[in-house]
Amino acid sequence: MLVILHTNCTTAECDAVEDCIRRMGFNPLPVPGSNRTAICITGNRGPVDAALLARLPGVMECIPVTKKYKLVSREVHPLDTIVRIGDVQIGGPVPVVIAGPCSVETEARTLAIAHAVQAAGATMFRAGAFKPRTDPYAFQGLGREALVALRRVREVTGLPVVSEVVDAESIEAMLDVVDVLQVGTRNMQNYALLKQLGQVRKPVLLKRGMAASLDEWLMAAEYLLAGGNDQVILCERGVRTFSTHSRNTLDINVVPVVKKLSHLPVLVDPSHGIGHRNFVRAIARASFAAGCHGVLIEAHTDPATSYTDADQTIDVPTLAGVVRDRDLLLQLEAT
Amino acid sequence: MLVILHTNCTTAECDAVEDCIRRMGFNPLPVPGSNRTAICITGNRGPVDAALLARLPGVMECIPVTKKYKLVSREVHPLDTIVRIGDVQIGGPVPVVIAGPCSVETEARTLAIAHAVQAAGATMFRAGAFKPRTDPYAFQGLGREALVALRRVREVTGLPVVSEVVDAESIEAMLDVVDVLQVGTRNMQNYALLKQLGQVRKPVLLKRGMAASLDEWLMAAEYLLAGGNDQVILCERGVRTFSTHSRNTLDINVVPVVKKLSHLPVLVDPSHGIGHRNFVRAIARASFAAGCHGVLIEAHTDPATSYTDADQTIDVPTLAGVVRDRDLLLQLEAT
Amino acid sequence: MLVILHTNCTTAECDAVEDCIRRMGFNPLPVPGSNRTAICITGNRGPVDAALLARLPGVMECIPVTKKYKLVSREVHPLDTIVRIGDVQIGGPVPVVIAGPCSVETEARTLAIAHAVQAAGATMFRAGAFKPRTDPYAFQGLGREALVALRRVREVTGLPVVSEVVDAESIEAMLDVVDVLQVGTRNMQNYALLKQLGQVRKPVLLKRGMAASLDEWLMAAEYLLAGGNDQVILCERGVRTFSTHSRNTLDINVVPVVKKLSHLPVLVDPSHGIGHRNFVRAIARASFAAGCHGVLIEAHTDPATSYTDADQTIDVPTLAGVVRDRDLLLQLEAT
Amino acid sequence: MLVILHTNCTTAECDAVEDCIRRMGFNPLPVPGSNRTAICITGNRGPVDAALLARLPGVMECIPVTKKYKLVSREVHPLDTIVRIGDVQIGGPVPVVIAGPCSVETEARTLAIAHAVQAAGATMFRAGAFKPRTDPYAFQGLGREALVALRRVREVTGLPVVSEVVDAESIEAMLDVVDVLQVGTRNMQNYALLKQLGQVRKPVLLKRGMAASLDEWLMAAEYLLAGGNDQVILCERGVRTFSTHSRNTLDINVVPVVKKLSHLPVLVDPSHGIGHRNFVRAIARASFAAGCHGVLIEAHTDPATSYTDADQTIDVPTLAGVVRDRDLLLQLEAT
Repeated sequence: MLVILHTNCTTAECDAVEDCIRRMGFNPLPVPGSNRTAICITGNRGPVDAALLARLPGVMECIPVTKKYKLVSREVHPLDTIVRIGDVQIGGPVPVVIAGPCSVETEARTLAIAHAVQAAGATMFRAGAFKPRTDPYAFQGLGREALVALRRVREVTGLPVVSEVVDAESIEAMLDVVDVLQVGTRNMQNYALLKQLGQVRKPVLLKRGMAASLDEWLMAAEYLLAGGNDQVILCERGVRTFSTHSRNTLDINVVPVVKKLSHLPVLVDPSHGIGHRNFVRAIARASFAAGCHGVLIEAHTDPATSYTDADQTIDVPTLAGVVRDRDLLLQLEAT
Repeated sequence: MLVILHTNCTTAECDAVEDCIRRMGFNPLPVPGSNRTAICITGNRGPVDAALLARLPGVMECIPVTKKYKLVSREVHPLDTIVRIGDVQIGGPVPVVIAGPCSVETEARTLAIAHAVQAAGATMFRAGAFKPRTDPYAFQGLGREALVALRRVREVTGLPVVSEVVDAESIEAMLDVVDVLQVGTRNMQNYALLKQLGQVRKPVLLKRGMAASLDEWLMAAEYLLAGGNDQVILCERGVRTFSTHSRNTLDINVVPVVKKLSHLPVLVDPSHGIGHRNFVRAIARASFAAGCHGVLIEAHTDPATSYTDADQTIDVPTLAGVVRDRDLLLQLEAT
Repeated sequence: MLVILHTNCTTAECDAVEDCIRRMGFNPLPVPGSNRTAICITGNRGPVDAALLARLPGVMECIPVTKKYKLVSREVHPLDTIVRIGDVQIGGPVPVVIAGPCSVETEARTLAIAHAVQAAGATMFRAGAFKPRTDPYAFQGLGREALVALRRVREVTGLPVVSEVVDAESIEAMLDVVDVLQVGTRNMQNYALLKQLGQVRKPVLLKRGMAASLDEWLMAAEYLLAGGNDQVILCERGVRTFSTHSRNTLDINVVPVVKKLSHLPVLVDPSHGIGHRNFVRAIARASFAAGCHGVLIEAHTDPATSYTDADQTIDVPTLAGVVRDRDLLLQLEAT
Repeated sequence: MLVILHTNCTTAECDAVEDCIRRMGFNPLPVPGSNRTAICITGNRGPVDAALLARLPGVMECIPVTKKYKLVSREVHPLDTIVRIGDVQIGGPVPVVIAGPCSVETEARTLAIAHAVQAAGATMFRAGAFKPRTDPYAFQGLGREALVALRRVREVTGLPVVSEVVDAESIEAMLDVVDVLQVGTRNMQNYALLKQLGQVRKPVLLKRGMAASLDEWLMAAEYLLAGGNDQVILCERGVRTFSTHSRNTLDINVVPVVKKLSHLPVLVDPSHGIGHRNFVRAIARASFAAGCHGVLIEAHTDPATSYTDADQTIDVPTLAGVVRDRDLLLQLEAT
């Protein structure tokens, strides 16, 4: 249940509504919005008596929410959320292209790649400082040393930076350097981490878990919004199936379905989605055509020598092709 | 191993090559082509002595084939196969739009739909006469009565017709009426049926099995080509995964991968691929963008009253939108 | 809806019930049983007016059926079905052990294997005459020649024989020689074949499709029962998942669930279920412990030289171990 | 590569071997063992020159390791690991039965359940203090308050206690109270947590991730062993597939395969594995028969009122049945 308040509702009226909800045995959760103020009722298993609330002063209407997720639902927030990072808008009419190497290698190389992807048309930079690796003996990222390189990228190129956060401890250090905190597929249901990130005032890019249902993914996002962080970007990166011709099975269907159910922007990661560099551009193009709000792509000035994910990392000219496809599809829609 | 013959190779030379292959303990399989003649060696488990064959008169070169499938492989047939049905080309530069109801209902209604999808820009008609249904008590298609309606569609509109074949017995009756025989997802590994269809001289549209790996799908196509029918069209229609937000999980990745591995045209069925009519157009657009050779779509003048698959059947204006998307993407590629 | 008739219900009364059902717009399907006669109502989408039927002469009670499948449901047939093949009972208290080579090789070898598996305690013999193979160039079974060998096995050892049927054409030839007709995983949804087998008066062993839901599997069995063949044996053989440490993922869960939902006997095929000979005995033992009515096992006097499925074929001493496990578990239950 | 040292190898010799490995560009990882000392070589991508090492003083032999995981591999540690918790042995000949409620409810109720499961034959107690829940608004466990109850259980009943750890912060508090730290399925690839738990000197029970391949699961265990914690217990709890007749698809195949590849004990969680209380006993019995080292079961004195996972929680008489099945199967093996 969502209780929509009149725009001129007073603080006292708002408090009274919250008190009433508490007396009914539920939890009120204020949902600030640009066009209206609302209070979301959580903690209810059965039906809520809307009539009781509807007659309180300041209440405009009561909207039942049929999904388990509330704050991420379009029922509660009909308009698209646009996440703004400097001049970049994620969730608006122009799909973003976020590109960079899988992991920060050296500062010099990272800067060179950043310049190259910027020249190719990317408007955000991605690179991993902390890498969650299946193999404990494999390269785990440069860690805090990598953050220094990312800070330089931001200073020199002006590109906003996305990087993965793997534990609560490193959040603080990343907040200084990174514009969007990425939660990786293996941590999508690391609820302890999600609770921490709900407290943060930086956008979070939440990748879909390898075998997460759409509901589980949206519920993971709900953890962030329920914690107070409504700057959430979803990112499909392929799911695990029986198929072996690609690294993962990109679930292109999820793009239009998410857009119907949720107001949050949804990106696609074609690099992990298909896992072979020769096919990344075709899949990025398909993702734009399916209506995604942008792509997150592994790109490198010299893909073959990439420390990690070399197979799925594209070169800079291919990235320029991805940007061109995005632009042409935008023109197409304009006609 | 594929033995490529000189264009001026004589019949006697060709026979000598085949004899030599037989003496080596393998089976020679002549592969006629427009640009060259070749003999495919099958039945070998280990390596074949290419040197022995290469020095025979008439032999130009010997190409090792690394995949289990041979005749469907690009190694053996580097150029794209284009299946021609009257004026319609499947596998050429212009993706086809094949549309029609899930099943033939009445002749009048079928004709009305055919006229409507033609006006909307579809260049082929699809409709099921024999319906393989999960439920034995559900409507199983009008059968031979439906074939009469399909014949009328072809006569009146000139649209070529695709329809599903479910057993060996009905092939004969369908050959008269239908331009492309469809093998459904549930029969992809019905090898008895595939062997029969290898003998037929009509194009076959082979849908991917619900849980078929790419190799299994291409091997099923290999049954058709090994039987002598090289007019084969592949069609991705979504695979079965844990996901429940869509009827199937459309494997968009398979499109560029098939195109790399095989010369056969590959279509996408977005209707089964996502299973909800509101999203079919977005998925069709994504399929074109991924590079498919066309789409197979369930469309109806009155989707809600469709006998079968009503949820995923689009109306005619939406189909016109699919055709428009196709045309705009073609322009985009031309620029 | 199932209409149960009094034991002394006359034919005229029975006919009147059927007429009434037809007038209601549905199809009556008589279900003969040893303890009672019943008429199953099919073709209804909405509710059936039970009161109207309950007051007809000869009607004892009307049982609503909540599942899509009816004749395979325990709601309709509360007692376990026991399929009797000579002295062998499938579905009774003693789980059967059906063993033999993947495919019939030579008559001599097939006979030798049959004697060996009989000595090891198997009470039925299995061997493929027609093999559905992924690879069109691979050994496809000896076909009709194999049937001669199977006839000899039956004559000489007295073991009943199970063998796979792959098309309608060969049913006739198999009926003479084979005691149970097996429908393989790839043909579970070959409804044309299922309809033919519904007409046959021989038991059918229906393997679960590679990605078939439980409902789809039971609906495939319903095709057989609706056609009039109630001698149906289900067989779980593993499903397709992302796992690669075994050939298939044996769905052990399905055993107790099937037994709750259906009266049909359910076997397990541990050979395909795990796909590696070293583990077949452990999985067979687990299957007995889960409550299955028997196992279908690939066994050979010399597994390594088996024409097909050599990796998963066990030797005769291991088979004897499987039989011993079965016997000990039976004792365990008796205590 | 694993370098096995002579039992009388000196520290200086051992250091020299480690230095040599470092000079070769790899990392030496000492592996203490009761029967022998060994040094594992990690960080190598290509082959290691064994001859160079084999001739160093103190070296007995060099064993190549073909798997990505090393310390969890049977190649490196041929004998079964037995994890000892007080009198309880996990990994020995007698499978353990670990039982208790999904979550700690009140102290009184938790104690009552502990007494009941002990009386039924369980030798360890399980109950969640911190619950990772898909729904942010759902009951998240009593947290630190629950730890007090668990301490009481241990004091009063003497049963060792297993409970789930969800973040690095709570490890310290749990170490005081809990005998085995459980890592849940959603955190199997939370490598930050695994690294912390590698430093701990308490056994860790590592559940398999919902879509984790066997290799990924063993690599997650490798994180623990590489960190220095070799008291690791694996636990299969079902994987995610297309099947909907059970909550998860229990991968019974994994039990014998893990036992072949690794020396670590492997348990089964039949409660999550099938997800319906009526079938838990059958699946527990199948798991024993497949050779698992024990079961982890949700049991409650009043399952219907369980705060969480009520559907899959068995009552105490059913638990007694599980223990009886275990005992009878043990006798069976003894015969």
